[in-house]
Amino acid sequence: MLSDIEISRQSPRLHIDELTRRLAIPSHLLNPHGHYKGKLSLALLKEPPKKHGKLVLVSAITPTPLGEGKTVTTLGLSMGLNHIGQASIATIRQPSLGPVFGVKGGAAGGGHAQVVPMEEMNLHLTGDFHALAAAHNLAAAALDARLFHEQRLGAGFTASTGLTRLDIDAANILWPRTLDMNDRALRHLTIGQGGPADGVERQDRFVITAASELMAILALASDLKDLRARIGRIQLALDLHGNPVTAEQLEVAGAMTVLLKDALQPTLMQTTEQTPVLVHTGPFANIAHGNSSVIADRMALALTDYVVTEAGFGSDMGLEKFFNIKHRQSGITPSCVVLVATVRGLKANSGLLDIRPGQPLPASLGEEDLPTLHQGCANLAWHIQNARRYGVPVVVAINRFPSDSQAELTLLADEAMRAGACGTAISSAFTQGGAGASELARAVVEACERPSAIKLLYPDAMGLGAKLATLVECGYGGRGVILSDKAKRQLAALSKAGWDHLPVCVAKTPLSLSHDPALKGVPTDFEVPIEEVRLCAGAGFVYALAGPIMTMPGLGSLPAYRHIDINDDGEIVGLS
Amino acid sequence: MLSDIEISRQSPRLHIDELTRRLAIPSHLLNPHGHYKGKLSLALLKEPPKKHGKLVLVSAITPTPLGEGKTVTTLGLSMGLNHIGQASIATIRQPSLGPVFGVKGGAAGGGHAQVVPMEEMNLHLTGDFHALAAAHNLAAAALDARLFHEQRLGAGFTASTGLTRLDIDAANILWPRTLDMNDRALRHLTIGQGGPADGVERQDRFVITAASELMAILALASDLKDLRARIGRIQLALDLHGNPVTAEQLEVAGAMTVLLKDALQPTLMQTTEQTPVLVHTGPFANIAHGNSSVIADRMALALTDYVVTEAGFGSDMGLEKFFNIKHRQSGITPSCVVLVATVRGLKANSGLLDIRPGQPLPASLGEEDLPTLHQGCANLAWHIQNARRYGVPVVVAINRFPSDSQAELTLLADEAMRAGACGTAISSAFTQGGAGASELARAVVEACERPSAIKLLYPDAMGLGAKLATLVECGYGGRGVILSDKAKRQLAALSKAGWDHLPVCVAKTPLSLSHDPALKGVPTDFEVPIEEVRLCAGAGFVYALAGPIMTMPGLGSLPAYRHIDINDDGEIVGLS
Repeated sequence: MLSDIEISRQSPRLHIDELTRRLAIPSHLLNPHGHYKGKLSLALLKEPPKKHGKLVLVSAITPTPLGEGKTVTTLGLSMGLNHIGQASIATIRQPSLGPVFGVKGGAAGGGHAQVVPMEEMNLHLTGDFHALAAAHNLAAAALDARLFHEQRLGAGFTASTGLTRLDIDAANILWPRTLDMNDRALRHLTIGQGGPADGVERQDRFVITAASELMAILALASDLKDLRARIGRIQLALDLHGNPVTAEQLEVAGAMTVLLKDALQPTLMQTTEQTPVLVHTGPFANIAHGNSSVIADRMALALTDYVVTEAGFGSDMGLEKFFNIKHRQSGITPSCVVLVATVRGLKANSGLLDIRPGQPLPASLGEEDLPTLHQGCANLAWHIQNARRYGVPVVVAINRFPSDSQAELTLLADEAMRAGACGTAISSAFTQGGAGASELARAVVEACERPSAIKLLYPDAMGLGAKLATLVECGYGGRGVILSDKAKRQLAALSKAGWDHLPVCVAKTPLSLSHDPALKGVPTDFEVPIEEVRLCAGAGFVYALAGPIMTMPGLGSLPAYRHIDINDDGEIVGLS
Repeated sequence: MLSDIEISRQSPRLHIDELTRRLAIPSHLLNPHGHYKGKLSLALLKEPPKKHGKLVLVSAITPTPLGEGKTVTTLGLSMGLNHIGQASIATIRQPSLGPVFGVKGGAAGGGHAQVVPMEEMNLHLTGDFHALAAAHNLAAAALDARLFHEQRLGAGFTASTGLTRLDIDAANILWPRTLDMNDRALRHLTIGQGGPADGVERQDRFVITAASELMAILALASDLKDLRARIGRIQLALDLHGNPVTAEQLEVAGAMTVLLKDALQPTLMQTTEQTPVLVHTGPFANIAHGNSSVIADRMALALTDYVVTEAGFGSDMGLEKFFNIKHRQSGITPSCVVLVATVRGLKANSGLLDIRPGQPLPASLGEEDLPTLHQGCANLAWHIQNARRYGVPVVVAINRFPSDSQAELTLLADEAMRAGACGTAISSAFTQGGAGASELARAVVEACERPSAIKLLYPDAMGLGAKLATLVECGYGGRGVILSDKAKRQLAALSKAGWDHLPVCVAKTPLSLSHDPALKGVPTDFEVPIEEVRLCAGAGFVYALAGPIMTMPGLGSLPAYRHIDINDDGEIVGLS
């Protein structure tokens, strides 16, 4: 089989003008970026809707290091819907440059279910991540500059500038700096060390751009005005009296919004079979809500019959956050959930195999092993029941690998139906494109006709502590939370400050339903320790840290960038 | 008069497709970015030239805090050439976001001589600076990751990875990190402080993106292959034995080039009068050579009759570096130099007035004051003679301000002719656009017909120390250089390593012909102290530090970002 970049290059593709024309989007609402991608103006949301599409939410079993092919299945399903004569658009997140150069060299799907041109998708795309980093770092620079000038001018600050002092507490700065890069040396640093003219010395940290609160804000904003208001609410620091210092108070919220004006527009691209794809934003599914943007979903739903969107990690992560955070803010409801499962991934979730990075894979993964698969299917059953809890029909997509036996595929499908799926289908989109996902597409169309009545885990009015306990009990299947003293104090302070109405976003490992990556399958007898809670006033949620969460990855000892280059024809090689 | 952004918004503008068509550029060689700007494919350089244009190099008197309007005059002259029936394109550098949010809120010309849409020019443009920062920071992350893994794995590094140790010396890392932001707190910092898993602790610094060696490389590269080769030559660090560690050795040069593939394409925009403008790169004129790109100049020269390009700061800086560095590498020769002068600027260069930031301006600046102007004209005379030294005719453009008296304008023009200008003309492009620069355009057309025979200050074969001495004596009018012991050692080492053939790039203040900003007018009795010299092996020059050079600006106490916002119609306000 050809490499991803070879398949991408050989795929017939529509000029962006033609792609836009087929969607009946007026040409003045497209801002082209090159010949094969373009940004869609927000004015499109003010046009009368051409369609009232149905949303299909793609989630998965508990992820494993093997990769379950969720993006491949999301794109494949959208192509499969086209294949059976249904109009469809996929909405997905933009990949981060960090992992592209660090670990894998590409994140635009794969095989015959890719976004093309894959190198444009995987590199700068239309610059949104860079714009977001600039807006983020402008706030950081503004904060440190204000700290510096207030300290430098002392009592004369107000007389000299006409501004009211903010009295920022250098020991309580909440806003890090950011780069879209895997750079562990920037996890912990001390800045402002040059002397009296070079800023105030203090500890600081960098997060990768996808981990910025601004990324969650961009993904949740309903329009430019809402974006501006959310940015104004961001709490950048505490002052010396413990009160929040917001971006509005620092007078930087307008300039940050100006930097994000174009980034608020989703980017239209296409798959290897010319199915339209909206690529937009990239919030993590741990410290943020892990889904593509509200604006992209809303635009797509007004343009087509089916919108297939992907939520990060397993159904305990991105899917939970889709309902309890994104749906709560946007009102957009899925008609059906697709859970991606693989034979290999369920075997790995059985807890019976010893899979470690850098070690050879256990032989059982590549051979028929029904007992191990059967044990792993408990994880699948849990995710099916979890998704059904939200009141929506569930289809299981079995992403087929060459080593899967027919008996294994049958077992998986039987277990899925037994656990409450309304349908199952094998997807071979990686090797066959949309034709390989047509069975899945039919199952999804059928599921979308079924009645659904959406139910959230908790009401707005529940207190933050009770929301956390409910999430752990009903959303993860655990016994409850253990709040650290710090977390208790923080929850009390948030409640007092009037933030009780917000939803909660738990940052935990995706590799287990619990907080502990070692607990495989369906753990039940666990309590989730919450070390710390933090307010994202702009994004509109409170996030809770359940264990160490990496917000700045590092490069490995054999990083992917070593093989990325241009060849003698000036073409990019090594992305795959 | 309207604000800059109001004028920009009201200017009639051509769709980028139409602008491209008028230049006879095939549509497949344009990569549009929105409706009013686009990148030109490098394949354009392989098409047969449509024209053999003449290059006009715009320089200026010694700059003052008042602003001489060099970009306004560069754009105005190009519009003026159109006005008198000549085809013309301007090539200018892209503004940095740092100053846009820090001090002035815009850098796309001004008044009726602007690049439009000015907000797109002043903000992300087509993302080149962001791409450059990503490529730069990838090398920095790769360097620290290699340092970390070699230290972590110790003697087992090679066995574990198959790679040869680089033995990077953490105390001799030459490559900083970068952000396109004014952020003084990042001038000096300590990274890698999180503990054994979070990198190697060491001192580091950030420079603003325009100060990256990559920016000079992008501006000097002749094509993608040359870019790749130059990036491979970058010396990122020294190893424990004092030998250079290059980007090629770190295996990161290919990935860096891939990140810069699109940034190597100039961006086509237009002025307020639809004159085409190529905007590309933004190297500083102190630690780098301070001119737009070789590729932009070459493309423009093959498309039109006159190309007007701007060199940074006074003729001792950007113009000197144009000849001795850029021309030396590209072979492109100007047919004429335009020196921009103002009555106010020459009064300020007289040394008779006390002008300080934050203080009211001396009354003499706004009133007729012939004696002060006469004294200041010595600076103009020096720049005229300096430019003539390179063998090219010189036209003086008098950028008119409302407070200038007729007697002052006449004196300025007389002094210019006496000093050897082949013509002078008043430019009122700021208020009148191209019509206000038609007299200047005629003078330039006439000058371009004159014979010229280009002469450089020194031959390749001269030693680096002798080049520095020649530059100070002939390029600045000083008595010579004083090399620190460190600089002497460095020059000897560079000579030994075989870099003697490179040109030198002196980083000194632009505010005086000397190294000392307090020496106004035409200082002569000075020696320039050289503290340090550094090799830019990728850019192809050796730069010498003559005094403290700021490579990371800071935000002031009343920064420009405070007034930048979106209004109720979603339009940007506050950029001007």
